[in-house]
This record gives sequence, structure tokens and C-alpha cells, in this order.
Amino acid sequence: MGMMTQMMSATGMDAEQMELMEACIEACAACEQACVMCSDADLGDGMMRCSSMCSTCADVCNAMMRMMMRPTGWDMDAMTAMLRATIAMCTACAAECGMHADMHEHCAMCAQACRDCIAACENLLAAMPAMAGSTAASM
Amino acid sequence: MGMMTQMMSATGMDAEQMELMEACIEACAACEQACVMCSDADLGDGMMRCSSMCSTCADVCNAMMRMMMRPTGWDMDAMTAMLRATIAMCTACAAECGMHADMHEHCAMCAQACRDCIAACENLLAAMPAMAGSTAASM
Amino acid sequence: MGMMTQMMSATGMDAEQMELMEACIEACAACEQACVMCSDADLGDGMMRCSSMCSTCADVCNAMMRMMMRPTGWDMDAMTAMLRATIAMCTACAAECGMHADMHEHCAMCAQACRDCIAACENLLAAMPAMAGSTAASM
Amino acid sequence: MGMMTQMMSATGMDAEQMELMEACIEACAACEQACVMCSDADLGDGMMRCSSMCSTCADVCNAMMRMMMRPTGWDMDAMTAMLRATIAMCTACAAECGMHADMHEHCAMCAQACRDCIAACENLLAAMPAMAGSTAASM
Repeated sequence: MGMMTQMMSATGMDAEQMELMEACIEACAACEQACVMCSDADLGDGMMRCSSMCSTCADVCNAMMRMMMRPTGWDMDAMTAMLRATIAMCTACAAECGMHADMHEHCAMCAQACRDCIAACENLLAAMPAMAGSTAASM
Repeated sequence: MGMMTQMMSATGMDAEQMELMEACIEACAACEQACVMCSDADLGDGMMRCSSMCSTCADVCNAMMRMMMRPTGWDMDAMTAMLRATIAMCTACAAECGMHADMHEHCAMCAQACRDCIAACENLLAAMPAMAGSTAASM
Repeated sequence: MGMMTQMMSATGMDAEQMELMEACIEACAACEQACVMCSDADLGDGMMRCSSMCSTCADVCNAMMRMMMRPTGWDMDAMTAMLRATIAMCTACAAECGMHADMHEHCAMCAQACRDCIAACENLLAAMPAMAGSTAASM
Repeated sequence: MGMMTQMMSATGMDAEQMELMEACIEACAACEQACVMCSDADLGDGMMRCSSMCSTCADVCNAMMRMMMRPTGWDMDAMTAMLRATIAMCTACAAECGMHADMHEHCAMCAQACRDCIAACENLLAAMPAMAGSTAASM
């Protein structure tokens, strides 16, 4: 993440904002991985809605992660909307996985990864108005 | 798209809603392709912000397309939020590409693909409340 | 595809090579879409191995498609290896989907999309040595 | 990675094979992230071929990572071919990034991530014949 810190500092973000975004990138990456594995494990466990949701949640988290990692093209409105979409998808996925968490370890772990991702996205979203002010030139 | 029609009819969507979603899937696929090509062509033309935005727009459109193609796990809130995120990203990308449309054919084509995608997403979004009613069971 | 033709002509490819690559891009895009839909439909039909393979085949085809669409960074060895990987994955997926083609329309369509993609990749692979010669500078 | 260990043990892999695959998954994830960031940073540094290659390398590494994370649909030929494609793409990307490593920290870090990914893929590839023997049923 050293590279990311360096790149983000060039955008005018302060230390706290950078920490929140790094945490969000990590949470999206972890959620993508948990969702891909859970989606595949669900197949053997007969949970079709869970498997389908996990596949889409993985794709949304990957797109969110990549957006944050490309500061050259950051757009505030798009990032805000994408953070909300990631929160909505992770919320749906956490609810579905949560229903099978007692029976399947992979669902318990995936639901937790989704909840962690929601928290990280919400924290970043809360810091966004401040970001908009400090990085007007590059956003 | 015959397969998609068959799958969507199982969700309780009516003919008009299916048409709007198929159009949106096609527009997202076309926009992903235009953005990947434009992002690469921008490199030679020195347009860094445009190239970065196109890369992210391609990822967002791909995630949006795949979400629509997985009816088993559809969630109304997530789809609404993701349609809004796609519209926001395509709007930012169309504005940036639009500034170079006179000089670069790839930017003109990419900006048009973004605008087509925005229109398709907005049309589907407008039909979503009706979808929510008719497909309550599977959404 | 007009944009693609324009971009490829800048790499020194001849008309026949361009046609083969455009066909391959289209086949990869179609195969990704068929695989995403088939993977999701498999969930309801209890075909776990088919669903898992289709998900991976969709990801491989998307990566292959994007590689072809970024001529600025083309590398001959990487493209050759990636065409072989796409052929291998589509071959495995076509075999699995083909076993259920009689029962499930989505599997029949997906198996056909995989076979079309294999053919398009093989055609391009056969034309690659000639490409290497004519586009040495940019490859 | 606890989830992954659990899933892989169900495929008949031994402890050493599981370690190699987990290392490969981690290396692919790290390489995707380094490549996305490097590709974006290259834009400001005028390195078009490097940026294009990094974008494709990120996509190939993501597809490789996801293939490994979906044991339900593993196919030995496809995995072997995809490991080779990832090695070829990372080799090309490491060579290109390596040329700018002295001037740009992001290129030095990306080249290292590519080399780590190559090593992890080669280690797994070397263990594949043994995997084929022990997991014949599920592969």
C-alpha cells in the first residue's frame, strides 16, 4: 500500500482520508475474494440465490476497488454513487449469507467480509465532502 | 439474447421491461468495449484523465451488465443503486471524452457509447418500480 | 467496431488479420455473456460444476477480449499464451455444458458460444506468426 | 485464507499444494493491485506502453485468481494454460516496468509484484502433475 499512499498524497488528500481510502480498498479486495469463494462453495450446498448474489457482489467490489486505485480520473459524483452501490450490494449479500452463517462457515466469513466492506465504504463516504474541498483540482 | 429473454421471463418481468433490460445489457457491453479501446488510444494522445476515467467506466459497465445477467440473485435496492452509479460514471466519462471529440474519433465514439448507456440505464430505472411490484417473489 | 479497425491498422496488421481479431473480440464478448447467463441459470438446475466453469470461462474471455482491445501494449508471447488459455478454458466449458445441452437450452447456447470462441481463437492463433512479422515494431 | 484452505482440502490437495496455491492467489491479487495503480500513475509519466500492459496484466491476474478460487469447476488443462498465460503476461509487464524502475517508484513496485507472481505461478505449475494425481475425481 506504500504506492497507493504516495499516489493519493498527490491528490491533496490528508492523512486521515488516505487511511480511510486504503482501508476501503483492502475491504473491497477482501470482500471480492470472500464472495468468489462463497459463490463457488454455495454450489455444493444448494444455495442458488446466495451464489448468484456473491458473484455480483464480487464484481461490484472489484470495480469499486479499481475506481479508488485510479486517482487520475477520480470524479466525486461517480465515486459517491459507486460507494452507495457497493454498500447496497454488500448489504443484500450480507443479509442472504447471514441466513446460512450457522450452517456454512464460508457464508459466515463472506457475510462478515460484506459487513466490513459496508463499514469501510460508509466511513469513506462520510469523509467525502471534506475530500471534495481539499482535492477540487484533481476531482 | 434469446437466452436472456427466457431467463428474464421466469422472473415475472413483462415484455416491455425485458426489452428495456436487454437494451441496457447491450448498451453496457458496448460502452465497456468503447471505453477499453478509448482508454488505450488516449495513451498515444496524451489524455491522462480521459484514459483513467475510461478504464473505470469499463469496469463499472461490466459489473452492471453482469448484475443484470444474473436474475437468480437480483436485489432491487442494489440494482437501483448500481444503475445510478453507472449513470454517474458514464456522465463523467462522456463529459471528459466529449471535450476531445472533435480531435479524436475514439473519444467521439466513446462519448456516444456513454450517452447511449446513460439513456438505457435511465429507461430501465424508470421502469424499476413496476418491476418491483411484478417480481416481488424473485427480487 | 469501426474504432477497433482504425486502431489496429496503426499496428501494421493487414486486412485479413484485422478481420480475424475483430471476430475473436466479438466471440469472446459473446462467450462471456453466454457464460454469465448459463452460470446463473445452472444454479436453479443443480449443475454445480457447470456453473463454476462458466463463471471462470466468462472471466477468462473478458480478459482475452480486453487484451486484444489494447494494441498499445501488445506482447506476442502473452497474446499467444492467453489465446491458448482461452481455448483450453472454453474447451473444458463446452464439454461440460455439452453434457446438458439436450436438457437445458442455456447450456446448448453456452456450449455453442464456447465452440465459436475456440474457433475464433484458433483462427487468430494461426495468423499470429504473420502478425509477428508485420508488426514487429509495436509488438 | 482460512476459507480457501477448507475448500481446497475438499479437493484432495495435500498441505504443500495448498500452500503453493494460496501463495499464488495472494501473488495474483497483489499483482492486480500493483498493475492497476501503476497503469494509472504511468499516465502522468507519459509511459503509454507500460500503462497499457499493466491494465491487461491486472485483468489476466484477476482471472487467474478467480479460477483458483473456484475449485468446483477446476480443469487441469485450463489451469495449466492459464498459469502459463499469467507467467507470459507478467514477464512482459515486468520487463517493461523494469525499464522505468529507476525513475518511478510505482514501476519498481509493479515490476517486483509481477516477478513475485511469476515465481508463485511457476511453483504451482511445478506441483500440478502431483495435483492431477491426487485430485483426479474433482479435476
